[in-house]
Amino acid sequence: MISVKEALQTVLNSNQNFGVEEISFIKSVGRILKEEILADRDFPPFNRVSMDGIAIDYPAFKNGQRDFKIEGIQAAGSEQISLKNPENCIEVMTGAVLPNNANTVIRYEDVTIIDEIATINIDVINDAQNVHPRGKDGQKGDVLIEENKIISAAEIGVLATVGKSTVKVAKQPKVMIVSTGDELVGVAEIPLEHQIRRSNVFTLVSLLERLSIPSETAHITDDKPILKSKIESYLQEYDVLLFSGAVSKGKYDFLPEVFDELGVEKLFHKVTQRPGKPFWFGRRSFLKENDLNSDNHTNDKYKKNTIVFGFPGNPISTFVNCLAYFYPWYYKSVGIKLEEETAILNADVSFKPNLTYFLQVKLSSRFGHLIATPITGNGSGDLASLVKTDAFIQLPNDKTEFKKGEVFPIIRYR
Amino acid sequence: MISVKEALQTVLNSNQNFGVEEISFIKSVGRILKEEILADRDFPPFNRVSMDGIAIDYPAFKNGQRDFKIEGIQAAGSEQISLKNPENCIEVMTGAVLPNNANTVIRYEDVTIIDEIATINIDVINDAQNVHPRGKDGQKGDVLIEENKIISAAEIGVLATVGKSTVKVAKQPKVMIVSTGDELVGVAEIPLEHQIRRSNVFTLVSLLERLSIPSETAHITDDKPILKSKIESYLQEYDVLLFSGAVSKGKYDFLPEVFDELGVEKLFHKVTQRPGKPFWFGRRSFLKENDLNSDNHTNDKYKKNTIVFGFPGNPISTFVNCLAYFYPWYYKSVGIKLEEETAILNADVSFKPNLTYFLQVKLSSRFGHLIATPITGNGSGDLASLVKTDAFIQLPNDKTEFKKGEVFPIIRYR
Repeated sequence: MISVKEALQTVLNSNQNFGVEEISFIKSVGRILKEEILADRDFPPFNRVSMDGIAIDYPAFKNGQRDFKIEGIQAAGSEQISLKNPENCIEVMTGAVLPNNANTVIRYEDVTIIDEIATINIDVINDAQNVHPRGKDGQKGDVLIEENKIISAAEIGVLATVGKSTVKVAKQPKVMIVSTGDELVGVAEIPLEHQIRRSNVFTLVSLLERLSIPSETAHITDDKPILKSKIESYLQEYDVLLFSGAVSKGKYDFLPEVFDELGVEKLFHKVTQRPGKPFWFGRRSFLKENDLNSDNHTNDKYKKNTIVFGFPGNPISTFVNCLAYFYPWYYKSVGIKLEEETAILNADVSFKPNLTYFLQVKLSSRFGHLIATPITGNGSGDLASLVKTDAFIQLPNDKTEFKKGEVFPIIRYR
Repeated sequence: MISVKEALQTVLNSNQNFGVEEISFIKSVGRILKEEILADRDFPPFNRVSMDGIAIDYPAFKNGQRDFKIEGIQAAGSEQISLKNPENCIEVMTGAVLPNNANTVIRYEDVTIIDEIATINIDVINDAQNVHPRGKDGQKGDVLIEENKIISAAEIGVLATVGKSTVKVAKQPKVMIVSTGDELVGVAEIPLEHQIRRSNVFTLVSLLERLSIPSETAHITDDKPILKSKIESYLQEYDVLLFSGAVSKGKYDFLPEVFDELGVEKLFHKVTQRPGKPFWFGRRSFLKENDLNSDNHTNDKYKKNTIVFGFPGNPISTFVNCLAYFYPWYYKSVGIKLEEETAILNADVSFKPNLTYFLQVKLSSRFGHLIATPITGNGSGDLASLVKTDAFIQLPNDKTEFKKGEVFPIIRYR
């Protein structure tokens, strides 16, 4: 049995690189950017009018002139025109190029226009006001977005602006989620008295969807030869296998021995935590596409690892272990370093076993403090309790009494 | 000009009901649940074995017996069997039904099995231990999930468990996102000197995607008759129109007059805030499907409102107003009440104008405190600055000096 910290380190050390793919920028939200995004022009790309009004040559105003004959209009999206007479003005629109020979914009609110003469009604204006100068936000070639960023709406706007209609992102791992257990029936079925419906695989599908990872699901009956043959083919075909159940001490908990017989290297089995203790984690390495015994690594052969997460079958065990291990493994694999989030415990908690305790909490924000209120369910089988909470707070195993007001790391799932 | 508070209240008062639809449960993540989810059985549905081991009749142990002949195996997913002789035991697996006439489970770790005799190696066991009693987590008919909840992975697990292969959720509004402005070209195009690429519509598409709202986009040239005819058809066809640009004082800012001429009731125009001040908001009501002049409201006629959000065209103005107004409007419309989130300002800020200031901040979690560090960009045109921040902190207009350590509401976008 190893500690949560060691288990997590082992999982992180098994991170994989799934490569890069280029996709349409508008489909890239939630994906991990795998290129630097550079400014393709200066931003703004021209001296940009930032108020609707008139553009003048400032010295004329400074010399006391207040009435300006309107020479023309510079609309947004029109080619730059020129102010021909420095004692005249040009009407300008937000987003337009500042006309040649003009340098200052006075907004319509401060101007009266009668018979094509604009009269400025205020006494103080500043040279170059209401002009957003070319290159002020960034120069051509500047890095606007660093590599390895999770793409959100903010990044989408920048990608559009610089013309990145397609963008390089981390490829997602190919994931198969497998349930075992002969007590399980389909969601649309009516279970017999001694049966229950499959639920963990769908919870896992949804948790992976939060990471924009598509996944497939399968159910395998508790029959060792069948398990062995199906898992062998999944190991070949997928990057990651997630299992729920059959990793504990039961007579039909065949997975650890099946993994062993299929050459999946056990990196650990059992972690000093509650819930989720019987977690099994391992890796199978392949040399793909060519003779497995050859030492000659040519281009048409490559090493492939398949990572196996064998989560315990209780609903909350599966849920918390996906968040506590699969999520960090994925983020490490795609190059993201997440900040730890902490919250303030809102009640005294006593927990005697020498285990890290992932306690369900309801989160609330109060005066800039993140408050974690424990909601104790009925143990690791009580899936419905997850509906009432937002996160797990991680209470370390080096003490048994946790006081209201103390601060601990949390793992959110909403 | 109205305050942010009044504007928000007006927007919220314009909430719409888009009805309910029934969809596959596995597609429902991010949607709003529109039915109560009840337990279809007791949970657990039977006295459930919660450890792999042997099941006995407790009085035998209490009477001093330690060796138990194994009568059979109760696997998970098998019909309940019976302990025939109360001095024997049955091997039981996690998830199995507790056998008839047995009531207590001793885990394999505490038992030695030789020649079909299980010997208990510990002296203290509790009556009914390692059994999760029928109905402990919930009784048949209990409400497991309340209506009006955002569906996450936790809810998916419960839906699967109770056999809700389809589920009633709030229908999403039908949304059209329109850009205007002749300076705009497509993302894949090379802009001329005085042009820029369209970006706001894609930012809005992505912000709506976060709410699981699909949307369509269109661009309309700055030509009043064309604007009028296209917008009229969008008003008929969609529930919500989002515009970016053309709501300010420019000569080609036709939208307010087009809205007026098309019978869109202006609920407000301009809000005392920065950025995003020239925000236009209104509503058009229709009697659909039948004679508009009839007072006779039969079933084949209904009143339909189309809500119009006319966001200012600067990238950050559009972005913040979508978060500050469209998001709350949507949540109110689908029956969700969100808690306000607050953060602690990490620097002194001075802001003189009598406007509510939506200031961009980078968030970090420190000892259970949510810290908001201001990142000042180059004004409302500086889209790239959104990449560096996570949220807006909302600084009220009733003061001008904001001190490090003070707490204000935030609006997150990551």
